[in-house]
Amino acid sequence: MRIAVDAMGGDFAPREIVKGAVEASKAMPHDIEIILLGDETAIKTELAANGVSASQRLRIVHTTQVIAMCEPPAQAVRTKRDSSIYRGMELVKTGEADAFLSAGSTGAMVAAAIFVLRRAPGVKRPAIGMVLPTTTGRPVLVLDAGANTDCEEIELEQFAVMGKLYSEAIMNQKDPVVGLLSIGGEDLKGNDVTKRTLERLRANKLITFRGNVEGHDLFEGVTDVVVCDGFVGNVLLKTVESTARAIGHWMKHEFKANPLRLLGALCLKGALRSMKQRMDPELYGGAPLLGVNGTVIITHGASSHKAIFHAIRVSVEAVKNNVTQKISDQLEALANNSTTPPPSR
Amino acid sequence: MRIAVDAMGGDFAPREIVKGAVEASKAMPHDIEIILLGDETAIKTELAANGVSASQRLRIVHTTQVIAMCEPPAQAVRTKRDSSIYRGMELVKTGEADAFLSAGSTGAMVAAAIFVLRRAPGVKRPAIGMVLPTTTGRPVLVLDAGANTDCEEIELEQFAVMGKLYSEAIMNQKDPVVGLLSIGGEDLKGNDVTKRTLERLRANKLITFRGNVEGHDLFEGVTDVVVCDGFVGNVLLKTVESTARAIGHWMKHEFKANPLRLLGALCLKGALRSMKQRMDPELYGGAPLLGVNGTVIITHGASSHKAIFHAIRVSVEAVKNNVTQKISDQLEALANNSTTPPPSR
Repeated sequence: MRIAVDAMGGDFAPREIVKGAVEASKAMPHDIEIILLGDETAIKTELAANGVSASQRLRIVHTTQVIAMCEPPAQAVRTKRDSSIYRGMELVKTGEADAFLSAGSTGAMVAAAIFVLRRAPGVKRPAIGMVLPTTTGRPVLVLDAGANTDCEEIELEQFAVMGKLYSEAIMNQKDPVVGLLSIGGEDLKGNDVTKRTLERLRANKLITFRGNVEGHDLFEGVTDVVVCDGFVGNVLLKTVESTARAIGHWMKHEFKANPLRLLGALCLKGALRSMKQRMDPELYGGAPLLGVNGTVIITHGASSHKAIFHAIRVSVEAVKNNVTQKISDQLEALANNSTTPPPSR
Repeated sequence: MRIAVDAMGGDFAPREIVKGAVEASKAMPHDIEIILLGDETAIKTELAANGVSASQRLRIVHTTQVIAMCEPPAQAVRTKRDSSIYRGMELVKTGEADAFLSAGSTGAMVAAAIFVLRRAPGVKRPAIGMVLPTTTGRPVLVLDAGANTDCEEIELEQFAVMGKLYSEAIMNQKDPVVGLLSIGGEDLKGNDVTKRTLERLRANKLITFRGNVEGHDLFEGVTDVVVCDGFVGNVLLKTVESTARAIGHWMKHEFKANPLRLLGALCLKGALRSMKQRMDPELYGGAPLLGVNGTVIITHGASSHKAIFHAIRVSVEAVKNNVTQKISDQLEALANNSTTPPPSR
């Protein structure tokens, strides 16, 4: 199995990316190869810094271009054919790699995946899945986390099916329960699209559907999958980060206010560390792009070597479990069933 | 000045509502009267429990009906004319009260406000404003927090103007900066409606506009006002609550893991209390319903006496500062200017 990794993507590339790849290469079975895409000289330098050199299990594919975070994605993908992102997708398309992951521009990753790999049969729009911890210990998958704004009900329905399959295959959830993100638990609550989507999800035989869920329910493990459009999903996930960061800020401020509190904070050092870990998005292995013909994982722009390590681990799982094929099959089935008229509006 | 309070609305009504009203009555200048709406016997019992009886400064208006949280708002408002919510709005309409506040059904409050008080001249749809703390110490006003799903750009533009005026008048912000909630700081980011709204807000002379803001920026005080539709706003605010609650849950769990940590938590008791206070939504005095002909404040369903106390305080401020009239004037001006064609789509 071969996992392609964009060595040039993210705020701390290539240093953290290469470091994470080296760690993964050491930790994983010998039949797993990692392909680092990017500037060969820079990657070699980083490999050396980690005490290794390029090998069959840690190969370099030299690329000359980089897509920056701020570039308009579609244009960048069309014009930068020798960028690490474009070439990574090509490796997946030609079968030279089984999966591709990057901490680079999310927009460019989505655009390149659609452009090079194409949507899986039946899929209208691919979605980004994002895993969050819950207080029950069972993580929840939120999708779409930002690939598509302005979704129609058929798209949200596909997200529900893709989310269910990913939750089963990668998160080991038996018969995952799907919820539709809305502004109240009752069927009447929601906006125009969620109200129409609710009917479709109730009628969908491929999923176990719980109905509307709210922001309140997010961390309580009420459902295993939460479906929303990419605008709402992105706002939601950034709000979670923002809230956690603000609480951390206030905690630091309060915990330093006097010597007694400093002592208390010292006693709680381990507790604070394990809290941080519990909420650490890097442990969840990045966000899968679901609904394209290939396994694609997008990690946070600020990814450290640890995030890359876990993203490689998750990529391997996704390939092993054949998630991409399963999604195609089920969505094709869904598309074929949908030739009967959808529920009345 | 007379503030009408729905004694029957909220999870802990009438007990907490009456208690909060009694506390406010004691703390406030003598020219401020509080009118409690609801079942007279129940209110009298609660007044007695707080060691007071009805008086000119703490009057009872007996009502016979209650609108439950789960009732479809529009229908409830049309049929329950002797409910505390409907009667409260009537008191504002007739001038017998200067403001009305309730911890009851948000939907019913919005419906009753529109039905009885009517939209302010020029206002398309009223919005609920919600105040959040930030790490800079300057709170931020998010609107709409849930009155309207599926907003058009002209509505979001009106929210921006209403938010600016409220921030100035009640939050004492000089020249408040307005941001549009989106999924990235760049102008290209957003959904169809936010992209169209961005152009309008840039062209709007009544506000100081910063451009797109993200969920990431929420607690960092990047802007004083954050504009979004009520679906997104509601998801956002519930996500903040949910995240804070989950962190609290994990903290408790970790802090009890061993005796050393228990000792640490003991040393930090004061710090944890003041953190909780810092984030306590009850201190912010409820959410104003902006854009109707009258001062209306909606508080959390789980409001305690403290929330009611602060909501009464904020109501008094809003009346004193003539917020309702200011909003009408400016939105009328905006509506008149908008007879020129809006920027091209």
